[in-house]
Amino acid sequence: MEPERSLTADDVNQRQLRVRYAVRGPVLQRALQLERELAQGVKKPFASVVRGNLADCHALGQPPLTFLRQVVALAALPALLAAPGFPEDARRRARRILDSCAERSVGAYSPAAGLAPVRADVAAFLSERDGVPADADDVYFGSGASDLIKTVLAMFVQNVNGKPPAVMIPIPQYPLFSGTLTELGLRQVDCFLDEERDWELSREEMERSLREASVDCHVRALIIINPGNPTGHVLTRENMEEIVRFAYDHRLFLLADEVYQENIISKPFHSFKKVMHEMGAPYSQMELASFLTVSKGLAAECGLRVGLVELVRASAGAVTAFRNARGLMQCSSVLGQCALDCVVRPPAPGDESYERHVAERRHILRVMEERAAAAHRAFSDIPGYSCIPTDGPMFAYPRIEIPESAQRAAREQGLLPDELYCLQLLEETGVCATPGSGFGQRAGTFHFRLTFPFAREPFDAALAAVRRFHLNFLQRYA
Amino acid sequence: MEPERSLTADDVNQRQLRVRYAVRGPVLQRALQLERELAQGVKKPFASVVRGNLADCHALGQPPLTFLRQVVALAALPALLAAPGFPEDARRRARRILDSCAERSVGAYSPAAGLAPVRADVAAFLSERDGVPADADDVYFGSGASDLIKTVLAMFVQNVNGKPPAVMIPIPQYPLFSGTLTELGLRQVDCFLDEERDWELSREEMERSLREASVDCHVRALIIINPGNPTGHVLTRENMEEIVRFAYDHRLFLLADEVYQENIISKPFHSFKKVMHEMGAPYSQMELASFLTVSKGLAAECGLRVGLVELVRASAGAVTAFRNARGLMQCSSVLGQCALDCVVRPPAPGDESYERHVAERRHILRVMEERAAAAHRAFSDIPGYSCIPTDGPMFAYPRIEIPESAQRAAREQGLLPDELYCLQLLEETGVCATPGSGFGQRAGTFHFRLTFPFAREPFDAALAAVRRFHLNFLQRYA
Repeated sequence: MEPERSLTADDVNQRQLRVRYAVRGPVLQRALQLERELAQGVKKPFASVVRGNLADCHALGQPPLTFLRQVVALAALPALLAAPGFPEDARRRARRILDSCAERSVGAYSPAAGLAPVRADVAAFLSERDGVPADADDVYFGSGASDLIKTVLAMFVQNVNGKPPAVMIPIPQYPLFSGTLTELGLRQVDCFLDEERDWELSREEMERSLREASVDCHVRALIIINPGNPTGHVLTRENMEEIVRFAYDHRLFLLADEVYQENIISKPFHSFKKVMHEMGAPYSQMELASFLTVSKGLAAECGLRVGLVELVRASAGAVTAFRNARGLMQCSSVLGQCALDCVVRPPAPGDESYERHVAERRHILRVMEERAAAAHRAFSDIPGYSCIPTDGPMFAYPRIEIPESAQRAAREQGLLPDELYCLQLLEETGVCATPGSGFGQRAGTFHFRLTFPFAREPFDAALAAVRRFHLNFLQRYA
Repeated sequence: MEPERSLTADDVNQRQLRVRYAVRGPVLQRALQLERELAQGVKKPFASVVRGNLADCHALGQPPLTFLRQVVALAALPALLAAPGFPEDARRRARRILDSCAERSVGAYSPAAGLAPVRADVAAFLSERDGVPADADDVYFGSGASDLIKTVLAMFVQNVNGKPPAVMIPIPQYPLFSGTLTELGLRQVDCFLDEERDWELSREEMERSLREASVDCHVRALIIINPGNPTGHVLTRENMEEIVRFAYDHRLFLLADEVYQENIISKPFHSFKKVMHEMGAPYSQMELASFLTVSKGLAAECGLRVGLVELVRASAGAVTAFRNARGLMQCSSVLGQCALDCVVRPPAPGDESYERHVAERRHILRVMEERAAAAHRAFSDIPGYSCIPTDGPMFAYPRIEIPESAQRAAREQGLLPDELYCLQLLEETGVCATPGSGFGQRAGTFHFRLTFPFAREPFDAALAAVRRFHLNFLQRYA
């Protein structure tokens, strides 16, 4: 006889049970099933699934940066330092990092916040980026940006004036945030990016959102994803200033998810830290948590699991709480920290790896530009599609018109209209895109997010397939 | 003018603020300061600090396992697969793991639970260890065991029958647990290991603890650390059965921290899974979460940050909650997973690396035995010390008598008696040990935990210094 379970759906943490990671919804599940069927030889109208749901450049075919991987391999196996075939600057870098490891082993814990020289290199990178000195003591590494975002958000789990805490986030948002807010029991307060105005966030909309939420909760923080995910849009500087003023006026702690900052192709990147600094007091004195990761950018080393937060001007109490929570989990991967060091301090002119490194980065950026341009061309040319050009991140987020009869059909099948759309797209073309409902969208609007493979041909074919599919879809539901 | 902080000690998450990681208390802080002073040339009665507080073998001088590091380097830089100097089985292993990575890159995310072949290898290892089949689907990797322990404990954060949830843990315990329970807002229910009976856990004590706690909370789970940390003691099989029956009778979910299982030198290791299986129904049908890590054992790769949990017979609801929470954080380090694969599936007889791997492991085990024996000899010979022989983990946990006048002196300085003892030990000898109060101890008893360096001479010198110090200490406070 099987004993009763001591932990069931009824008494397990209900917040964990309610977590939804919408980018892993029914469309992805069907894609995985189709891949299994194809592997078993089942005939489909396509030879392989195009995983346009993945925000994982290596999985999409982008090659790793050689210098970074050389440093990681040397740090993992220091015997290689004496072997031929490694550039001198890679050896030097690995030695410098190993010198800061206890007994020169990447197998020893680093301090919970990270290795001192890597934190120093990050601080130098941030200082250079922002034109304002960064303090290495404000920099903490974690097992990916997600891990740090969770710790920072957890700091707000505390009632204020008897009201439950809440966090404001512009919609569409990346479901890591909605999922983490759910798990932490923080109220999510939506405000909507304005697609008609290039995904800007208006003061009016922020004020509306705050006013309505403040009836029964206390909004404590504001999350901004810039460059945007899933929009691919970079905020204008004016809009950033507006957001900063809004946060200041309402004493909101600003969390800036800036993980796609290196992926921008069309304009300069302004960090919130820089903008706040240049706005001067009192804005230059506000608290800020800004996140970066080796999983995005040109390195795109998702599997190495290292991200960082710069916790700027946090109060002593906040820092203590943060360090307490981080300390329990020990450090992040030391090999990941090696990779991070290469990202923030790439080979410099005169270094043996310089030319190759620059060429590799240039190639990746050029491919990214090509894919973004191709996506924009294709989506601008499909009737019923509209698409703000992406500013660089590895995806496009077109808006699509879904006929009323298709919306009815979706409801009858217990699906959302964009889920029905993406499921049919997948079934007929093999293209796996993420429905906009996974990110949140204004009622009555529909989108999907499509990430770019590194190789051109499959992407061009996928874009052509999307077009054909859409025209059929319109006929089917005319 | 500095604006008001929006996140302060008053309104930050108070549970994070209350987290204590006692192994990082005043003694360690002073040790770090002494190291800085020594580096600046300040004269001390010792040349260097002996970091007997570290549970980090590489930091204590233990060398990494060559095969493991070769596989990690090859996976990081696949160009090396064509280079000379690597044994064929290391190449084969790296290729096998790379084949399971998207586009053969360790920079791609693995599935959140881990790479399929590594999970399969873990399941094969567990099956072999326990004599009962393990299911790879029950195995999940995380960024260290700590990370997974936190996710599993978080599952119990839910009131039951209107009572707040609580978790029982034998004292002394490792402060990761007390700290994580504090952060999660779970009540910690102490029961005491019986030092007089070789650190056994009696049914009477468990019942007493449960009865008293159940007045105002609902005890949902029981954590067992075996081999013990800080005790270094391995539970007898009879005691394990007693614990299992107790957990069954009270419907407690058993969490088995078995991370030191490979460090045992004196007796066979029995996992809770195996014991439950061999006890038969209904015990063989109970839920269990068992934790393992590459940070301990003979690999001891703390810095690579990979641990695993086997979640056995968990209900569908529990599994959903667990997967939801894990999925948000993506995967653990893929290079760490490579290391884990080498741990659970070492080179086999006939493999090119076999002899060397066996010799390296044997050497580490022998050193561990020597240090444990030396510690036991030394501590048995100091008046006022008593010490259960360690069963293998990399530390000893002697009990020490502290004279009443020293206890008074401590109180006057705002210190606990064992803190005063360890601070003076550090100041006079350079030996940094962790006071027993960091782990919890029965009122009126005092201990410290001392971890073993890999090199013999400094350890022998440290043990002699402890003896001299103690005799002086007794005189000082006679």
